[in-house]
Amino acid sequence: MSEKITADYLESFLGNRRLMDQLTFILEAEKLKTILRRTLLLDRSRVETDAEHTWQLALMALVLSEYSDEPVDLQKVLKMLLIHDIVEIDAGDTFAYDSVARVSQVERELKAADRIFALLPLDQAKEFRALWDEFELKQTSEARFANAMDRMQPLLHNFFTNGGTWDSNGVTATDVHRRMEPIGKASAALGALSDKLIALAVEQGILAPAKVAEAVGQKAP
Amino acid sequence: MSEKITADYLESFLGNRRLMDQLTFILEAEKLKTILRRTLLLDRSRVETDAEHTWQLALMALVLSEYSDEPVDLQKVLKMLLIHDIVEIDAGDTFAYDSVARVSQVERELKAADRIFALLPLDQAKEFRALWDEFELKQTSEARFANAMDRMQPLLHNFFTNGGTWDSNGVTATDVHRRMEPIGKASAALGALSDKLIALAVEQGILAPAKVAEAVGQKAP
Repeated sequence: MSEKITADYLESFLGNRRLMDQLTFILEAEKLKTILRRTLLLDRSRVETDAEHTWQLALMALVLSEYSDEPVDLQKVLKMLLIHDIVEIDAGDTFAYDSVARVSQVERELKAADRIFALLPLDQAKEFRALWDEFELKQTSEARFANAMDRMQPLLHNFFTNGGTWDSNGVTATDVHRRMEPIGKASAALGALSDKLIALAVEQGILAPAKVAEAVGQKAP
Repeated sequence: MSEKITADYLESFLGNRRLMDQLTFILEAEKLKTILRRTLLLDRSRVETDAEHTWQLALMALVLSEYSDEPVDLQKVLKMLLIHDIVEIDAGDTFAYDSVARVSQVERELKAADRIFALLPLDQAKEFRALWDEFELKQTSEARFANAMDRMQPLLHNFFTNGGTWDSNGVTATDVHRRMEPIGKASAALGALSDKLIALAVEQGILAPAKVAEAVGQKAP
């Protein structure tokens, strides 16, 4: 019956337009449970869903906020994280290391944000959209810390599942270092942990070192 | 490699005991993705996991906090919700309408709380445990509102999946009314919505009305 859930439909038998707009958004956002990511669960039984990933990031922020190098408003970080992937209901999960898909990602996600946040009453639609834009821009301490959580979680999972999705996708340490840059920008301590995990992953043979061409490129002046 | 993740093990190659304690908790809590609930996804494709359920409650609190009859500290509500089901990693999900399992539930969950929150550094272990105790006791406005979200979400899902798990478990409107009581204690508006959904569910034949014995009992003075 999911396809029938619109605010008009709900209002027809439950009244209260504002609450029905909010309910429509909540029931639409629920589809985040059906969007699969590339990241394996730690028990390697399957990949995680976007909803599960989002919960884990919020929990990580709760536990790790003391490592932010700048003061952060934790409530704002949590709000940002709780909604940051909702656009993937329309845009799908884009694999971090898929450079082709990432070209169209921005456009697909902007369109999704336009549609999905607009389900909310106007004041909340504006607030949630502003939070999402702020997360994407990474220009505030809260956005930087939230993004650090979003990068660190798959790194932890790839490391603790013996390489996880790195190997099958030809990802190298250079790729991972580049992808993990936002961690160090939010937190020196978590940046150092990230560097250590990447180095250990190479040492343990679960992550390929830089490609030869890349390694040469880095050494050139 | 999940079974190996202890703070001692992590400290042996990553150092920084406090951060490793926090990481151990985060990676242990991740098992919430493997705990299945009875509630169906809205598309009825499968039941949800505890991690997905938790994310949805936090999102609901974010959207619906204006309906709390008392002022609430939203950050505290979010913190409570993000950790409220972590005990189910050890204790399992107890079906809301299984009166036999619910007898041992409290004991099982207390034991789980003792073990899991203690993985954190002492200050955070105390904070998280206090948040969980507060949620369970339902004596503060934040705990009441968080509990209202926890009750309302399965009600919404059962309603919008044509009865969901009610029918197959012999649940009646009387059972659901009793189970949903905390909603009205936190919010008159959400309590009214809950009552309306139960009445509509009975009207639509997707929820059995009260059992005969119960109906008689209710009418007696």
